Amino acid sequence: MVERREMSEEKSSIRELSQLELFFRPRSVAVIGVSASRGRIGHEILRSIVEGGYDGKVFPVTISAKEILGLRCYESVLQIPEPVDLAVYALPSNLAPQIMEECGVKGVKNVIIVSGGFKEVGGSNIDLETEVVRIAKKYGMRVIGPNCIGVFDGKSRFDTFFQSYERMVRPPHGPLSFITQSGTYGVAFLEEAAEEGIGVSKMVSFGNKADVDEADLIRFLGEDDDTKVIAIYMEAVVNGRRFVQAVSEVSAKKPIVILKSGRTSLGVRAAQSHTGWLAGSYQVAKSIFKQAGIVVAEDFEELYDCAKALALQPLPKGRRVGMLTNGAGMTVSACDAAEQRGILVGTYSDETRKKLVEALPKYALVREVVDLTGSATSKEYKITMEHLLSDENIDLLMPFFVFQDTPLDEGILDVLPEMKRYGKPILGVYSRGIYGREVAKKLQQRGIPFYRSPERAIAVAASMIWLNEYRSTLEKRSLNKRAERPVVAEEHELISRALRSGRKILLEHEGKMLLKEYGIPVTEGRLARNEHEAEETAESIGYPVVLKIVSPDIIHKSDVGGVVIGLRDRDEVKTGYRTIIQNVRRNRPEALVEGVLVQKMAPQGLEVIVGGVKNEEFGQVVMFGLGGIFVELMRDVTFRQAPITDFEALEMIREIRGYPVLRGLRGQPPVKEEAIAEILTKLSQLLIEQPRIKEIDLNPVFAYQDSAIAADVRILLE
Amino acid sequence: MVERREMSEEKSSIRELSQLELFFRPRSVAVIGVSASRGRIGHEILRSIVEGGYDGKVFPVTISAKEILGLRCYESVLQIPEPVDLAVYALPSNLAPQIMEECGVKGVKNVIIVSGGFKEVGGSNIDLETEVVRIAKKYGMRVIGPNCIGVFDGKSRFDTFFQSYERMVRPPHGPLSFITQSGTYGVAFLEEAAEEGIGVSKMVSFGNKADVDEADLIRFLGEDDDTKVIAIYMEAVVNGRRFVQAVSEVSAKKPIVILKSGRTSLGVRAAQSHTGWLAGSYQVAKSIFKQAGIVVAEDFEELYDCAKALALQPLPKGRRVGMLTNGAGMTVSACDAAEQRGILVGTYSDETRKKLVEALPKYALVREVVDLTGSATSKEYKITMEHLLSDENIDLLMPFFVFQDTPLDEGILDVLPEMKRYGKPILGVYSRGIYGREVAKKLQQRGIPFYRSPERAIAVAASMIWLNEYRSTLEKRSLNKRAERPVVAEEHELISRALRSGRKILLEHEGKMLLKEYGIPVTEGRLARNEHEAEETAESIGYPVVLKIVSPDIIHKSDVGGVVIGLRDRDEVKTGYRTIIQNVRRNRPEALVEGVLVQKMAPQGLEVIVGGVKNEEFGQVVMFGLGGIFVELMRDVTFRQAPITDFEALEMIREIRGYPVLRGLRGQPPVKEEAIAEILTKLSQLLIEQPRIKEIDLNPVFAYQDSAIAADVRILLE
Repeated sequence: MVERREMSEEKSSIRELSQLELFFRPRSVAVIGVSASRGRIGHEILRSIVEGGYDGKVFPVTISAKEILGLRCYESVLQIPEPVDLAVYALPSNLAPQIMEECGVKGVKNVIIVSGGFKEVGGSNIDLETEVVRIAKKYGMRVIGPNCIGVFDGKSRFDTFFQSYERMVRPPHGPLSFITQSGTYGVAFLEEAAEEGIGVSKMVSFGNKADVDEADLIRFLGEDDDTKVIAIYMEAVVNGRRFVQAVSEVSAKKPIVILKSGRTSLGVRAAQSHTGWLAGSYQVAKSIFKQAGIVVAEDFEELYDCAKALALQPLPKGRRVGMLTNGAGMTVSACDAAEQRGILVGTYSDETRKKLVEALPKYALVREVVDLTGSATSKEYKITMEHLLSDENIDLLMPFFVFQDTPLDEGILDVLPEMKRYGKPILGVYSRGIYGREVAKKLQQRGIPFYRSPERAIAVAASMIWLNEYRSTLEKRSLNKRAERPVVAEEHELISRALRSGRKILLEHEGKMLLKEYGIPVTEGRLARNEHEAEETAESIGYPVVLKIVSPDIIHKSDVGGVVIGLRDRDEVKTGYRTIIQNVRRNRPEALVEGVLVQKMAPQGLEVIVGGVKNEEFGQVVMFGLGGIFVELMRDVTFRQAPITDFEALEMIREIRGYPVLRGLRGQPPVKEEAIAEILTKLSQLLIEQPRIKEIDLNPVFAYQDSAIAADVRILLE
Repeated sequence: MVERREMSEEKSSIRELSQLELFFRPRSVAVIGVSASRGRIGHEILRSIVEGGYDGKVFPVTISAKEILGLRCYESVLQIPEPVDLAVYALPSNLAPQIMEECGVKGVKNVIIVSGGFKEVGGSNIDLETEVVRIAKKYGMRVIGPNCIGVFDGKSRFDTFFQSYERMVRPPHGPLSFITQSGTYGVAFLEEAAEEGIGVSKMVSFGNKADVDEADLIRFLGEDDDTKVIAIYMEAVVNGRRFVQAVSEVSAKKPIVILKSGRTSLGVRAAQSHTGWLAGSYQVAKSIFKQAGIVVAEDFEELYDCAKALALQPLPKGRRVGMLTNGAGMTVSACDAAEQRGILVGTYSDETRKKLVEALPKYALVREVVDLTGSATSKEYKITMEHLLSDENIDLLMPFFVFQDTPLDEGILDVLPEMKRYGKPILGVYSRGIYGREVAKKLQQRGIPFYRSPERAIAVAASMIWLNEYRSTLEKRSLNKRAERPVVAEEHELISRALRSGRKILLEHEGKMLLKEYGIPVTEGRLARNEHEAEETAESIGYPVVLKIVSPDIIHKSDVGGVVIGLRDRDEVKTGYRTIIQNVRRNRPEALVEGVLVQKMAPQGLEVIVGGVKNEEFGQVVMFGLGGIFVELMRDVTFRQAPITDFEALEMIREIRGYPVLRGLRGQPPVKEEAIAEILTKLSQLLIEQPRIKEIDLNPVFAYQDSAIAADVRILLE
């Protein structure tokens, strides 16, 4: 299925896009499974189609009535005398294969399966879904759903919702589009937009995404001229690479905002490496989304909030926000939130300050935030906004309003939208209430997004700032190899040999040989098969040395007494060798022992961890974190989809919370970030070229002032 | 001023409370500074009083009109022919002293100063505020403000807002009260409640709190039978001890929820100790609020959300939440949020599961969350809620609703409120929208709080769970000494001597002597004044030893080469001594050197930091955290107001994020928490009994399996 898609993405994308278009603007639609009673799913869908202003032909299909809502009913799609672009399915799931066949025969282009009772309930219903997809493919039909509420189109006024117009207001046509795994969030998004007067181009609830998935829809919306911003809600990521590919193509043109939930389900799976353990988390998805240039929202409100701002306003050129208000409280909260997110407040020049003090009444407080006090009228707002926006030290304007304050006249409805002429983004905040919401709605309709919470507005500003910074680095990100290189090497002989001998693990010295071939510095060492060899090897590589057991059966060497460190001469090596062998014989008598690795002991450096794992959702990802409890307890790690560029590697290093440790705390010298970055990029290349690698841990990597070196490696195969 | 208050709290609290009562239900009110024009502050205040339904007498005071809104105007309060309980001041600040005098002469009981232009603008306006308070005290008047919007009373329908009824809806009478430093948040709170049909007893915007402050109001509302829950918004904490005392008294009876902003202003002040540096943060206030049993909200929405739930619902007896829905999306987010906060979902018994599967239609998904799907009617909700609430493994019910789904009938308006009979808390979540809000409002009016966001509802549940757990430990918290003991010791001779000699620092050996007297274990050591003494001391206490420079001019000993560790014999001590003296002579030639501390080197244990500081807002506080970069980088520390009980000390240790390190990571043995707790409680006692101590750092304290010991101490005096 994936293969078919990948082909079709190249060859028939235009045909596919126009077929997807027919979901939103079908020339004719059949609703299958319509009851005559209100409150029944099929009935309500029909009603929404009829009442919404859709101007195509509508055919109810049912055996229980002759006419519903004034429309003639058909017992089967096959009896409909005209062509049908779209069928909306609202019958029990077990009837789906038969009806799908009929739709195929009829020549229906697309089907939306609203009904549940498929994969989501498990058991034999999974096969039912597979069967539906098989039939659809046979006839060239595309399917949205099952288990969804279907689509909404702001322009054609077509939707397939069983939420009636009495209960759910639809938004006007406009720049936002939303694709969502959850119909509930779809409803919430549209209602939120409707209430605020914000326009929506398209909404798709894709449910089980048996056929049409996020990637299809993102490509489609990427080409949709009516869509300026794409918001996404998703739970499970099924084919993360395909998804990331699609968003990467689109995100450079149109802002994409995502909310991912279902964050904890993967956290429990067993993993043998640190990286494997840490990679089963939301953190992976979040890192990779950001890598692809998507704005990541932490909850639904942030998703909507960001999408709205990105649709209505330009991006800020920097992180300096100008604030003004007629009531201080909210701005105090805003300043707290701004500081937390590294957003600067009160950066306007002394000259601007002087102008403001001169121009404003003397009770106005011209400080970090300009507080016009409860006596403010639209005139003082205008003066202040003009001065702030004219100041080159302000990148974004955030005006706060207590609309309830009676001195504030309605002149503000004109004054504020005029400020768009400065070309800087404006985010309004207001102090709630019914009247406040009305005023905010009018202003939103004139293009100024409004928020009821200072923290929310700051979160939006932070996302806009992030997106601007991301876009300014777009070239650096694509410098080397954002598209995956073809596999240049064959499967490495070490890996083939291990797999042939039934091993799912590379021995440490094998792992290090592999790393070395990819240019990753490792501590020097050789396998010694007996005591004498160990001594000779130590003599030749120089002291101090470390001895480590080499056994395909032992992953955690320290746990079985299989490691001794700091050996300073031949005698200590002899004793050390014996100790290790004894420990292992005692603790793991069944383990096959290949010998002992004699390794130059690296000087103590700053311990970091570099890893890679084949993630279920996103394929090969690389990980970076500080060593020790920072990783284990704080999970202070970051990920990228492999392969990565040098720029991305440095970005990874700099975005962990523990980064100041690398810069040197307590007078320690800083470590060489470029040396770690090189290990990261090379490891990412290795992961891609050796796809049998399942998990890889370089732990620890010692980082120094001038270099970095992997002191241990663990490679698991599949 | 503080003294006066503390006296009055004991002696005249009843009189004070009834005087405060007159702010909300004055028998007569004079509005001073009324214009005849709409949009002017004084005019709008008068209008609000008249239009709100207040039934007392109203006297406009102005020289610019004879009659306003049908009321006769007076040129001065002195001309009003009847007694005046309350004057509301809306003139420019510079006229305030004169008018206050007139109010005093007139016998006005209370004054609300709405106008700004006092302390908040700085300069000579600070004196203006002092003068106003002086005059008020002279005449026994209490003052709210300046720089505020005054009060609201849900029962008397009296308010002093310049926000007109056209622009601001007032809520019905009910169980919430809100005291706020910000008028803006006051407006937002009341409007939010009004829109949702939630009742409010009293709201006070206290502005600059020149006279009446949070502590006064908390005591007053603690006695107010109409108030079930107190919400607080504050920025600056002026007298934190007084505030904490007041809330501690009330919080055992009534839930108190607080939002504190202005979090970052203190972060910049210079501090010489780690503790001092870390204590300049919001973290201190947050820890201490929790210590006092206050629910801490992170933003305004959470403040309102929690207050609402605590007013309408009982507390849960545990952390197990039952969830049901007719749309999955929001519950996926809720489960993510629940896991993050340690809330359990899907804990109901197998028996309940079986009953649900039997009773519900087969498309219903009976999993962690019971998903009734979009076809759900109130009947399925009823069945499910009854089964979940009957299950002893469920402590709190969280029903989710897509009210837009047409199958869901309005029977739910009766079904849901009936569930209150189980005595377990219920928090509803709905998927937004205009119709949804209407339904939610009706249900809220019947006592079920509703939220538009799953994360918000989970945050509320977490707060309720926290409060229940806090209350269950109330006795343990007050066991020893929640009320401060009187100072049992005189100022310690070591401290007196240091201060007499002009020193603001105790030398390390002095500090350790002091700690020892308070029963805190310290590494053994003695001051050596020359090389020979150093050697002899080392011989007598035993090796290995540490040498540290002792100088009143050197706080950071390591930075000047003033510490050598791990000395194993007499020779090493000799060399070490010379090295230290040389280093110090070179690096700090001007420093007065008292000698070198010869100290038994403690075996390496787990490094933790215990500290104390005299906080500007809350007086003496103790701090606990893990040593090293955990403190420096992650700021993973916690605080309590001193003195603390054993229970609180253990709670501190267990609430840092790094706690698992103390329990033993990577096979390390756990350390003895009780030993650290003992150091914390004793340090807290020392802080209280020796009030000249400004900052104290025990860093590091080494914690072992069976004990803990302070290896270094730094004590700064004031």
